[in-house]
Amino acid sequence: MNAESALSTDRPATQTVVIELDERGYDILIGSGLLDAESSWQGLPRAAAALIVSNETVAPLYLERLRASLLKVYPRVEAVLLADGEEFKDWDSLNRIFDHLLGGAMDRKTVLFALGGGVVGDMTGFAAAVYMRGVPFVQVATTLLAQVDSSVGGKTAINHPLGKNMIGAFYQPARVIADLDTLDTLPARELSAGLAEIIKYGPIADAAFLEWIELNLEALLARDKKALAYAVKRCCEIKAWVVGQDEREQGLRAILNFGHTFGHAIETGLGYGKWLHGEAVGCGMVMASDLSVRMGLMPAEFLPRMQRLISRAGLPVRGPQLGLQRYLELMRVDKKAEGGQIRFVLVEGLGRAGMHAAPDALVGDVLASHCDQ
Amino acid sequence: MNAESALSTDRPATQTVVIELDERGYDILIGSGLLDAESSWQGLPRAAAALIVSNETVAPLYLERLRASLLKVYPRVEAVLLADGEEFKDWDSLNRIFDHLLGGAMDRKTVLFALGGGVVGDMTGFAAAVYMRGVPFVQVATTLLAQVDSSVGGKTAINHPLGKNMIGAFYQPARVIADLDTLDTLPARELSAGLAEIIKYGPIADAAFLEWIELNLEALLARDKKALAYAVKRCCEIKAWVVGQDEREQGLRAILNFGHTFGHAIETGLGYGKWLHGEAVGCGMVMASDLSVRMGLMPAEFLPRMQRLISRAGLPVRGPQLGLQRYLELMRVDKKAEGGQIRFVLVEGLGRAGMHAAPDALVGDVLASHCDQ
Repeated sequence: MNAESALSTDRPATQTVVIELDERGYDILIGSGLLDAESSWQGLPRAAAALIVSNETVAPLYLERLRASLLKVYPRVEAVLLADGEEFKDWDSLNRIFDHLLGGAMDRKTVLFALGGGVVGDMTGFAAAVYMRGVPFVQVATTLLAQVDSSVGGKTAINHPLGKNMIGAFYQPARVIADLDTLDTLPARELSAGLAEIIKYGPIADAAFLEWIELNLEALLARDKKALAYAVKRCCEIKAWVVGQDEREQGLRAILNFGHTFGHAIETGLGYGKWLHGEAVGCGMVMASDLSVRMGLMPAEFLPRMQRLISRAGLPVRGPQLGLQRYLELMRVDKKAEGGQIRFVLVEGLGRAGMHAAPDALVGDVLASHCDQ
Repeated sequence: MNAESALSTDRPATQTVVIELDERGYDILIGSGLLDAESSWQGLPRAAAALIVSNETVAPLYLERLRASLLKVYPRVEAVLLADGEEFKDWDSLNRIFDHLLGGAMDRKTVLFALGGGVVGDMTGFAAAVYMRGVPFVQVATTLLAQVDSSVGGKTAINHPLGKNMIGAFYQPARVIADLDTLDTLPARELSAGLAEIIKYGPIADAAFLEWIELNLEALLARDKKALAYAVKRCCEIKAWVVGQDEREQGLRAILNFGHTFGHAIETGLGYGKWLHGEAVGCGMVMASDLSVRMGLMPAEFLPRMQRLISRAGLPVRGPQLGLQRYLELMRVDKKAEGGQIRFVLVEGLGRAGMHAAPDALVGDVLASHCDQ
């Protein structure tokens, strides 16, 4: 608990979740007022310069506060702003970061700070992974989705027109800062998108947490700080446990992609940016829950339970009509596919998931049941 | 020694140099007839598909032979050809590799094979490092420069208009194949470019090897297989020793960049592809040797000795006239620079090198002495 949070009764105390990965381990700080707290920025890699990467939406809200904090640590702090949205998670945006770094002769000790959500975090992380073959970076996550999922674990990437997150690296941040106060300005749609990734952790890893979410969903939707603090911490703990065992997704880590095979197909098929990533994952979880039932892994009541929760969270439960063949084609280029065989993360029991191939006919039934005609 | 080489008296026996990097270690095979030898391709990662990346110049010579060898190991072998030259070591070329991989739904077990020189190797390695966050790759090095230097050690990159090799990754190959027979078709200019990197290893790491090069340069220029086999093996041994101690260039590894700070400035300043990388390094070594003398690290006779050897190898010893300010500006974005301070690899004694800052005035004297007016 730091000094700031001790003074306030309505603010949750700052909590730390540790990602243990030998020399690449790092802390996730979760709390209120972290953007302005000096302690958030102490002990980071030293450098002559820092570069903040943000977008046009987040920068007006938080850029100057972050810059002020970082100027106490780094002699030179610059910023580069990208366009906001999944459809800009591409090479051109990435190259704007490189242009700024090289144009300013910023050296290979430069520390990058990702100020924003999943898109900014994925791009900044990938830029850090490959600029001069690797510079340190810090995730300053300002969306619920980034705080509970995308900022943690070192997956970085950009999209390719033929597939989401296809070009990227496993590259761990030096620290993750989850300032819960930044969620106050989050649009409702983005809040719901974050709830999708929170809900995900229940069925795949923690049945009790699934019940907790069901009981506390209204508090989360109302942005109750204590509820948010608990949810963010629990999600980070689960992710830390999974990533600590399987950093490079050789096995276990793939369970974090529950709902994502269907979800990525929706995102790529509609064109990036039409649906938020969390929205596609929400709908994808409905489909993956149904497939878990149809494969005989879960009892029938699991599907309506998931549908109800996902719907209450403000997320779509019906997919767009892309056509069965197009869905299958999109899912066959999923990173989990092997030798043309699509592999799905399915729930095998509440709190337990695994990878499964499924007959195209069953997948077709799932899509027919949950897509608009 | 494998069966093929044992049968032949004029062919050097196949030799193996091992790069020791824990679970990322690998073998470098050096010898004749390796492209067609089954043993070259055994024990590699298994996959449903392999993708050969080559260029328009090398493919007509060796692509079908490599494809025939790989078809004994992989059910599906495809190829993508890039334009030949340093000026094409960019995002557009890289993206052609991704287009081919994703267009063919090639999964994250796919093995990439770089068939060519340093440019093909750097791009294929970087593509492998970031495609689906990492797939295995093999270097099939067909130029002397690639065999003695660029294919070994896991430095991969593309160029940025503002600096050479600025976007990349440390990513180790699964194996390096140096078939000395492929040097038979190498243009003389490329042979000389490779000699530059061979010469480099002498002053920085092995005084006796420098003498050996001086005594055997004519044999190397005449493409004598035994001389080439010895030179390639000795260079790989030195590089293996350096990379084994400092994979990610935190310190020692930087000595492999002797001549490269000046050399990269020449390449970037003239525009990529005007000079070959080895030519720029050759000239850069003259400048770095002079700077070593002017800094009082080496006796005066070191400069003419290096000039003579570099000139005999068919390499330029005078740099282009870019102007002092432009040289300094280009060198300040070198990856070894820190806080705007250029750092040079200088020889501190025959067979020993280290990093040094140098006054701009001395660097200016060096450039004035060795650049055309």
